[in-house]
Amino acid sequence: MQLYKAPNADIKFNLEAFDYEGQVASIDEYADFDLDMAMSLLDEHARFCENELLPLNESGDRKGIHFNPDDASVTLPEGFKEAFNGYKEAGFLGLPFPPEHGGTGAPLTLAAVASEVLIATNKAFSMCPGLTSGLIEALEAHGSDDLKGRYLENLITGKWSGTMCLTEPQCGTDLGMLTTKAIPEGDHYRLTGSKIWITFGEHDLTENIVHLVLARLPDAPPGIKGISVFIVPKVREDGTANGVSCGGLEHKMGIHASPTCVINLDNAVGYLVGVPHKGMRAMFTMMNNARLNVGVEGLALSDAAYQHALAYAKDRRQSRSLDPAKRELDHAADNILVHPDVRRMLLNVKSTNEALRGLVTYIAINIDRAHHCADEADRQKSDDIVALLTPIIKSYATERGFENVSECMQVMGGAGYTQDWPVEQYLRDVRIALIYEGTNHIQALDLVGRKLPRHGGRLLQTFMGEVTTLIRGSKDTPELAPFISALKERSKQLQAATMELAGKGMSDQEEAGAAASNYLNLFALTTLAYIWCRQLTHALSVGGAQQEAKFQTARYFFDMVLPEADLYARLASVGKAPMMDFNVDYL
Amino acid sequence: MQLYKAPNADIKFNLEAFDYEGQVASIDEYADFDLDMAMSLLDEHARFCENELLPLNESGDRKGIHFNPDDASVTLPEGFKEAFNGYKEAGFLGLPFPPEHGGTGAPLTLAAVASEVLIATNKAFSMCPGLTSGLIEALEAHGSDDLKGRYLENLITGKWSGTMCLTEPQCGTDLGMLTTKAIPEGDHYRLTGSKIWITFGEHDLTENIVHLVLARLPDAPPGIKGISVFIVPKVREDGTANGVSCGGLEHKMGIHASPTCVINLDNAVGYLVGVPHKGMRAMFTMMNNARLNVGVEGLALSDAAYQHALAYAKDRRQSRSLDPAKRELDHAADNILVHPDVRRMLLNVKSTNEALRGLVTYIAINIDRAHHCADEADRQKSDDIVALLTPIIKSYATERGFENVSECMQVMGGAGYTQDWPVEQYLRDVRIALIYEGTNHIQALDLVGRKLPRHGGRLLQTFMGEVTTLIRGSKDTPELAPFISALKERSKQLQAATMELAGKGMSDQEEAGAAASNYLNLFALTTLAYIWCRQLTHALSVGGAQQEAKFQTARYFFDMVLPEADLYARLASVGKAPMMDFNVDYL
Repeated sequence: MQLYKAPNADIKFNLEAFDYEGQVASIDEYADFDLDMAMSLLDEHARFCENELLPLNESGDRKGIHFNPDDASVTLPEGFKEAFNGYKEAGFLGLPFPPEHGGTGAPLTLAAVASEVLIATNKAFSMCPGLTSGLIEALEAHGSDDLKGRYLENLITGKWSGTMCLTEPQCGTDLGMLTTKAIPEGDHYRLTGSKIWITFGEHDLTENIVHLVLARLPDAPPGIKGISVFIVPKVREDGTANGVSCGGLEHKMGIHASPTCVINLDNAVGYLVGVPHKGMRAMFTMMNNARLNVGVEGLALSDAAYQHALAYAKDRRQSRSLDPAKRELDHAADNILVHPDVRRMLLNVKSTNEALRGLVTYIAINIDRAHHCADEADRQKSDDIVALLTPIIKSYATERGFENVSECMQVMGGAGYTQDWPVEQYLRDVRIALIYEGTNHIQALDLVGRKLPRHGGRLLQTFMGEVTTLIRGSKDTPELAPFISALKERSKQLQAATMELAGKGMSDQEEAGAAASNYLNLFALTTLAYIWCRQLTHALSVGGAQQEAKFQTARYFFDMVLPEADLYARLASVGKAPMMDFNVDYL
Repeated sequence: MQLYKAPNADIKFNLEAFDYEGQVASIDEYADFDLDMAMSLLDEHARFCENELLPLNESGDRKGIHFNPDDASVTLPEGFKEAFNGYKEAGFLGLPFPPEHGGTGAPLTLAAVASEVLIATNKAFSMCPGLTSGLIEALEAHGSDDLKGRYLENLITGKWSGTMCLTEPQCGTDLGMLTTKAIPEGDHYRLTGSKIWITFGEHDLTENIVHLVLARLPDAPPGIKGISVFIVPKVREDGTANGVSCGGLEHKMGIHASPTCVINLDNAVGYLVGVPHKGMRAMFTMMNNARLNVGVEGLALSDAAYQHALAYAKDRRQSRSLDPAKRELDHAADNILVHPDVRRMLLNVKSTNEALRGLVTYIAINIDRAHHCADEADRQKSDDIVALLTPIIKSYATERGFENVSECMQVMGGAGYTQDWPVEQYLRDVRIALIYEGTNHIQALDLVGRKLPRHGGRLLQTFMGEVTTLIRGSKDTPELAPFISALKERSKQLQAATMELAGKGMSDQEEAGAAASNYLNLFALTTLAYIWCRQLTHALSVGGAQQEAKFQTARYFFDMVLPEADLYARLASVGKAPMMDFNVDYL
């Protein structure tokens, strides 16, 4: 039973709340994309996802992918090829990419909020456009004009697709250990090595697949500083096969319709992207978008699960209300929404989903501003916010998303555990998001070890400046007072935790590592409190039922979710001793 | 890769810590089952599970069950029949049941701690003996001598198996709505109705299947007070088929080798168990064991996942230690156990698993004492503890077990998400335990609405008496001081929360309902702190590495897990307003 509907009304609310028109559509090159135009694009995209991709979600999960060992080909489930053709013909793949290479040239903000709907309707499918976008961004930012000319248009229009070939059997988190070799040969290189976990590494959707491959040149320094980036097409431009083959598929808990491939490179022709040995730097420039997108996966499946749990709850009658006045005695039992705990579970999910959707919008708008504002100070401010909040959305939205999907299953009882409903698939599909694109603890180390110290703590100051501006601007709005007062308190708590962490971590990095995951969650909750205050500010200007709904949902968040911050603050300050004094022989 | 080994050393530690010999083996009828005898039985059982059941766990999951619509038969995966025959021939099915009906007559404690190993090696398989045990207990407690004579031996020896037929499409949690009818006919009844979610309702392991069916007599009062219990065999004693058929199987996220059946009763012959209309009371007497067993499921799969995550972590090298002195520069990277967060995740799991194993032992010992102590005061004291802690172990151990399995997957990164390791199966298999045998919120309502008020609050007083005895007895043991002091503080916190809940709940039951789930978790953590103090007391008498290991693990629990109690206390005291003032139209 697939009931999902795109939450475009709430997406619009957030575009307004975070001033999409003033912040993004006001940038010269986005002048064509005012809110009306944006919503018309998003509505068209949502219709396609609901009509063409949603019907393939369950069948894709059940049928999975076929690997043919005879020719190492991979066949996707029925309907995926037609759906991909439809998606590319509608121009959705090229939404945020330059018109000169066949794209629409829309703000990245629209692609980011649209991706929630794409993922919610069919997460496995979404990974093909997702990975291709990553490759396009890398080429745009670091490729030579020649490479751009040869590759971008076919990728942007969906004639070809792209992958990211990073992981090898001996290295996932620690890419410094990778051993794939690239030997120079004339204007190109010859690559040899084995890559694993390659999403959409082989498939039958497009006539060519372009791999972005991390490898080492012969004169590369050891470790992370000796990695270069290459483009390696499956089929060479002259139509001959390159030395690229699929060595098999992983069998996974979820995302069954997304092929996860072993990709073997055997003397394959490749082209250098950017500067030799500076590959990791190039990868970091595109990582923000990819990590934001993984965060969106947590939100997307959480909302899809919520919609089903709510539909189930509205329909299900079981037991009597604890309040005799609410009992409907003409029915054999009361609707389960009378039970406080059913509401508690649903509101845990709803109140975090809506905040996370706001955070996605806020970050995406700042990505556009970081790249396209005319004023350097504006660009820098937005870049600070994006860099700081990216690890937070990736980690917190996936962790919470997983918990939320499980909470939705709990609302549905045994029904949620069966394949009659898609929630069990969402739970299996969403779990990987806590692991890939940098595990969630890697996000925490990125936050604590890179983002906080950067530019003498400027990133945090920039974000706290935003918080302070909001607090000051809300002085004369009594409706906001309880929320603003909680935000103030939480900001102080976060700043105190940051000082403590910086103090300890300066002399002992293990202290920072021990605290990082809990600190990230503390930061996330404070950030969501800020997002809720922004949303409430806008809700006041909207009025009516939407205002009431937002205020009631925010009240739940501030009363029942935000207190988790105290636990994270406490755990972040315990210190490393319980872990590091532990004798590993006793594990 | 199936690496699981039964944790019998820790099981033995707990049998000692909770004084199995003094509390159980000292009871006359259990005189033959001293600790040596107990461990010899448990070791034999563990060997069987490791050698015969573990190898079928993955294949059972992959192959699943076959339903043949032609004859409505159900075929279990290859090897299950042989494994069941081996299990029954070894006498494990009858371990805790009376010798006069073919059982071993061992204490239930041994069956309870053995079931952790049974479940960990093959949860799907474990459900057949598990459900059969439930039926045997119901017959023992409420069946006539005639029924016992006709049914018990064949069930206890595994010639036949048993089920529990409670749920119907319109009622799961709310059994008062059930409509299956039983019409008297001579010395028996004729039952008609449709039951769903019937575990092992049909299969090919035994020559007969005996269903325990909840149904209504013609003169039954409406609701929960009009339910009677019947025995309905698939094959009648004269060898003719009864009107019982399997209408199909559920397709579930996990436990793929455990058939979940629709069972249709069409004028089937059944026999009344116990008194007309008093069926629910009869069900409650056996529910404690069943709920304890579901709690054990959470522990079992959490420990199985832990063993795999630990093996993976010990083998995996990735990145460098944050402490330069710990770097092994002759390797390309350091073992991941150098990373504080990897230890944090493993210790979250280990420190809760070991406490839960202690809690299982403590409850099981009290079940034996509640039934078999000579002195009525002893029986009552133990019965109080069992009644109070059963909803806690069922709910908390399954919730934590699910989180723990997920945490173990996170330790393993992408590998944990693939079917190369069993952790993804554990995650799918364990999730149902939060739902069945009374959803976890039903456990919380049982705790708050039934167990706390019972006998004027005596159950809590009894348990707090145990806590106080331990605290007083530890006065002169300085090694225990920090743990005892935390236990004291947490007991006060729990008692304050109980007073607040009782005060609010008295005038408004919705307040109790809104707080119940968080209150249960608060209670659970306090209970686990008590269990840890009992374990540490025993560890001091053991000394050596085991003492050190227990103290280090306890330290982690008290520093990094127990603080969660503050969050639960806070959330339990928020009140119902954020849920019940919420306008459901805004969901």
